[in-house]
Amino acid sequence: MIIIGLDPGLTCTGWGVVAKSGSRISHVANGQIRTDAKAGMAERLVELDAALTDVILLHRPDAGAVEEVFVNVNPQSTLKLGQARGVAMLSLARAGMPVAEYPTKVVKKALVGTGGADKKQIQAMLKVLLPGVKLAGEDASDALAVAITHANMLGSHR
Amino acid sequence: MIIIGLDPGLTCTGWGVVAKSGSRISHVANGQIRTDAKAGMAERLVELDAALTDVILLHRPDAGAVEEVFVNVNPQSTLKLGQARGVAMLSLARAGMPVAEYPTKVVKKALVGTGGADKKQIQAMLKVLLPGVKLAGEDASDALAVAITHANMLGSHR
Repeated sequence: MIIIGLDPGLTCTGWGVVAKSGSRISHVANGQIRTDAKAGMAERLVELDAALTDVILLHRPDAGAVEEVFVNVNPQSTLKLGQARGVAMLSLARAGMPVAEYPTKVVKKALVGTGGADKKQIQAMLKVLLPGVKLAGEDASDALAVAITHANMLGSHR
Repeated sequence: MIIIGLDPGLTCTGWGVVAKSGSRISHVANGQIRTDAKAGMAERLVELDAALTDVILLHRPDAGAVEEVFVNVNPQSTLKLGQARGVAMLSLARAGMPVAEYPTKVVKKALVGTGGADKKQIQAMLKVLLPGVKLAGEDASDALAVAITHANMLGSHR
């Protein structure tokens, strides 16, 4: 079973793909999608959708999960994040897979054992869980963490 | 030239299509897309995208515009609105058309002459500008108002 995790953002969306076989989880690929900050909003969303669709076509995930963000600060930033997140969720769901959402704290707790883990702890744990993995960046790391969380939550049966 | 306007929302997205010929603007169609509140977020975004894509395939707009919302209250509501708005903008842009954004105040001012116009004034003006129009609802009315605003801003040349 192939599982994709996303950490969506307008500037940078992280993605991570893992394979689950029985109770074993292994790394498939991870990366980051950046959109052109000089382009208009609609064009940036098209860029994000097109790049994610390429990732989905290449790795053919059976299930997807997205980080459920904690929003508070600037409403305009929240709206922008929402726009990128909506497109990210659509890209997964349109490909026919169920899309789960996990709060950041749940992802951190599932990986490191505490909801207050920092990014370095997450990355260190990813290197333990996925030996030899090369992390494309912080957003890709968070996305892989979401994918692993979802893989662990899913039964091992299809 | 065919112009589509959108007033996006997760629960209900209004759409309005007008035709511009020289300086003359006429009504083509308007409607509202509701998504199933019992469905998951990703499924609702797929519903919205599919319904909007049908509207676009039917009316083949050359240009699109979206209401630029004023956000302030609940961050979770803003995030949800953003998700619907991102999908709406993507649906238009993916079909190859440029997508403009207009603040609500600009739309109201363009139609009624004052940024503080209420929904009834907007609807009354729509009935004057588009004789015989049947308005599918408040969101469809707002969407038609956005389409007319954009039609007026665009030159009459393609």
